[in-house]
Amino acid sequence: MTTKLKDGERLDDLQRNGYQIIQNPNKFCFGMDAVLLSGFARVKKGERALDLGTGTGIIPILLRGKTPGRDFTGLEIQEESADMARRSVELNGLQDSISIVQGDIKEAASVFGAASFDVVTCNPPYMTGNHGLVNPDLPKAIARHEVLCTFEDVAREAAKILRSGGRFYLVHRPFRLAEIITMLVSCRLEPKRMQLVYPYVDREPNMVLLEASRGGRSRMTVEKPLIVYKEPGVYMDEIYDIYGY
Amino acid sequence: MTTKLKDGERLDDLQRNGYQIIQNPNKFCFGMDAVLLSGFARVKKGERALDLGTGTGIIPILLRGKTPGRDFTGLEIQEESADMARRSVELNGLQDSISIVQGDIKEAASVFGAASFDVVTCNPPYMTGNHGLVNPDLPKAIARHEVLCTFEDVAREAAKILRSGGRFYLVHRPFRLAEIITMLVSCRLEPKRMQLVYPYVDREPNMVLLEASRGGRSRMTVEKPLIVYKEPGVYMDEIYDIYGY
Repeated sequence: MTTKLKDGERLDDLQRNGYQIIQNPNKFCFGMDAVLLSGFARVKKGERALDLGTGTGIIPILLRGKTPGRDFTGLEIQEESADMARRSVELNGLQDSISIVQGDIKEAASVFGAASFDVVTCNPPYMTGNHGLVNPDLPKAIARHEVLCTFEDVAREAAKILRSGGRFYLVHRPFRLAEIITMLVSCRLEPKRMQLVYPYVDREPNMVLLEASRGGRSRMTVEKPLIVYKEPGVYMDEIYDIYGY
Repeated sequence: MTTKLKDGERLDDLQRNGYQIIQNPNKFCFGMDAVLLSGFARVKKGERALDLGTGTGIIPILLRGKTPGRDFTGLEIQEESADMARRSVELNGLQDSISIVQGDIKEAASVFGAASFDVVTCNPPYMTGNHGLVNPDLPKAIARHEVLCTFEDVAREAAKILRSGGRFYLVHRPFRLAEIITMLVSCRLEPKRMQLVYPYVDREPNMVLLEASRGGRSRMTVEKPLIVYKEPGVYMDEIYDIYGY
């Protein structure tokens, strides 16, 4: 099929099921965090998954390729990103299993209804507030800074949307870990599994992957370290596996 | 000087300043967790440090050897352990800088007074409750299970005892991390630094080291992984450094 790319857009190969994705490098491109989150999240056979702030739809598309879930929904507030995501879904012929909805995370539970999903994923903005942002309305600022929603909004809506026992998967920066865990617990999203992502074996981690369960008792598994690089430019084997090479 | 060991006791070399410690393998011996905690904790020049549940006094003795702190106090509820700790302090000639106090963690703040220390350390019992314990009054049970105090008791008393801005250092099991962080935050002990201890680079961590500040804002540093073994029986260099070899 012929793909109609708009000005500034490009088509990237996802190394998975032949899937491709439309991105615009001037706006926002997905990063390793989205790929690692899609490797960390578990969507079981027949389950329904919602991605909050889906951007170009990378997480629903990767989860569709990697898991036996029944259907996948991406919620995105920015019209341009939502449009790109929809076109990527069509490009890959995935309209039957992936829906892209334009809307606000802060109202997600009223859009989709309470207890309507088995799994919620989110790769949220990492930076608090919009301090020092010259243009807080630019797509990159909205994706990276808590301009349009805070982590509290994300956790609160995820908790409402999940069925009891449903699972919330997120990726975030380790410097906010105490705040994140406290917020999850206060929303009755009990942290059950955590993995720290270290760029090298002798460096501080720069990402944390978390799984929380809607309800349940307090007991978590911390997984083996996920180390990204063996040496500069050379990934560890596990990273190649997650990327699907 | 001649050391008088009681029945069942032995004398161990601490590989640090020539210090030795009296232990009784039938009661409780210190483990790697105490050594790693004493390497993780920072006691600055002139500061006063208190160790909650000091057992045989291993942490005050190691901190006295490793840091420029002014004085060190160990609180221990079990008379026999407190006696061993006192004799170890004398054996090493450290009576001027280390005090061992027999008493209950649950009443620590009333024993020592509010805001009376710059640093509090604790290697608490890791296991909740006393389920399945045949003899919950045995020294090993008391050291390992929350028979005489819970983590809530530890955090509450540490928060009272610390001056504003003072630091609480603890070691615990990763499976309780969410509960620990939530409890610390609720006691206004803000997690500031964390390190996970992985037995091998490809295994789940079995210890977590935490530093929390009395008051302060929510932002933490997660440190590089602390990996214990290079191969079975061979420590990583960093572990030898911490042990002082």
